[in-house]
Amino acid sequence: MRLSLNTATIKKATLAQAARLCAENGITGIGPWRDVVETAGGAKAARRLLDEYGLTVTSLCRGGFVTTGSAGSLEDNRRAIEEAAELGTPELVLVVGGLAEGSKDLPAARANVARALEQLVPYASGHGVRLAIEPLHPMFCADRAVVSTLGQALDLAEAFAPHEVGVVVDTYHVWWDPELFGQISRAEGRISAYQVCDWVVPLPADMLLGRGHVGDGHIDFAPITDAVRRAGYTGHVEVEIFNQTIWDTDPAETVKTVVDRHLTHLGPV
Amino acid sequence: MRLSLNTATIKKATLAQAARLCAENGITGIGPWRDVVETAGGAKAARRLLDEYGLTVTSLCRGGFVTTGSAGSLEDNRRAIEEAAELGTPELVLVVGGLAEGSKDLPAARANVARALEQLVPYASGHGVRLAIEPLHPMFCADRAVVSTLGQALDLAEAFAPHEVGVVVDTYHVWWDPELFGQISRAEGRISAYQVCDWVVPLPADMLLGRGHVGDGHIDFAPITDAVRRAGYTGHVEVEIFNQTIWDTDPAETVKTVVDRHLTHLGPV
Repeated sequence: MRLSLNTATIKKATLAQAARLCAENGITGIGPWRDVVETAGGAKAARRLLDEYGLTVTSLCRGGFVTTGSAGSLEDNRRAIEEAAELGTPELVLVVGGLAEGSKDLPAARANVARALEQLVPYASGHGVRLAIEPLHPMFCADRAVVSTLGQALDLAEAFAPHEVGVVVDTYHVWWDPELFGQISRAEGRISAYQVCDWVVPLPADMLLGRGHVGDGHIDFAPITDAVRRAGYTGHVEVEIFNQTIWDTDPAETVKTVVDRHLTHLGPV
Repeated sequence: MRLSLNTATIKKATLAQAARLCAENGITGIGPWRDVVETAGGAKAARRLLDEYGLTVTSLCRGGFVTTGSAGSLEDNRRAIEEAAELGTPELVLVVGGLAEGSKDLPAARANVARALEQLVPYASGHGVRLAIEPLHPMFCADRAVVSTLGQALDLAEAFAPHEVGVVVDTYHVWWDPELFGQISRAEGRISAYQVCDWVVPLPADMLLGRGHVGDGHIDFAPITDAVRRAGYTGHVEVEIFNQTIWDTDPAETVKTVVDRHLTHLGPV
């Protein structure tokens, strides 16, 4: 499974620096975040830049945050769909959002996600973009994503065709799930992205930043990777790590570590 | 649903202080931890003390930590079973344990839980004690409990009779679960304890201590309580809160807050 570098892993690098580091290290895929694309002059300019390095854009991070049902959120997602199309990636990652401010109504928040998909899918399909629902670890349920398991993401996705709505398998978010392997198998044809990073304990004060390089934590990657492959996924594996210490490291060094860990735990780059 | 005070909520109080605070506040149930029982002179002395205040022991916390498959861990669980019997509670809470030191083999850890239940159930049944599997929030999967959902706890429990192995429903650990209500319904006859505290964000540096008083966070208690009741549970609701700020508060004040919140969110004490 070929390697793709998610730009969040080297947060302080520009898109141009990230692209050059990919090329220098034999990495053929890149997963940019929207803020990095914007800083690079927008999606069209970013696309030209990434083309120069022959990089495949494996996904765009991210749309979502649709649990409040606001019109502004739908509008922002339409812009994200346009950006994904301009970047030439068929996969727009959606982090669906947490509970609305002051609300404890989890079923209502989840219903808003289903409703937003109905409203966004025609626009996305018209742009050749698939909406890729990313279940986040249950510890983010209140504030970032009311979709917490792969099974739940698939329940939402299955109201649509496999080319319209997919799911993201991110080891950090799903490794603990007793239903993981059955759900990965069920996801055949819908896996939009396979993202990896490791679960390290103790988690730091900011839970968002507790992710480790592949191999530094408690996740057994081989069986998950095998399951994703058996489910027919032939895309890149995207390395996405949120970690302040890694962000404080020279990006060139981080990319070398990413490549080393990929060779050890996942195979050729 | 009557109120029971888990002693972890007022960690610095002795069992005698906790019992007196219960009596003074009209609380009829108490859920002690083993260390508090030991400090009170052991299970028999603790039982005499609690009898003086007319308190029902709703559960004993806790046994478990059986994922390494060690003989020492089984022996410790047998002692916990004896203590539960001596205390007069039919419910021994089990926190099953995380991955063994240096291991990434989650299926093996889970298999060890099933094996430990087989070995412990006859001894527990002989003492009139039910083993109550507590699923912990998935964020504790690596280091405290490889059983992360109520469904998974029930899968383990169903190899045994309902009076032999039960499950604990703790709002903090299960509130996010998209399958929660179906699984609570499935748990009919097996709910050993219903524990409550709230999910507050952001979590503090020590994730163990991030729990809030009922009403301070994002959990909608009424539908969960209704579901537990519909599943035939007629026991107490145990308030168990791990929170350094609450531990630093005068126990008398904490117990008053617990009672107030119970009246607001759960009904008569």
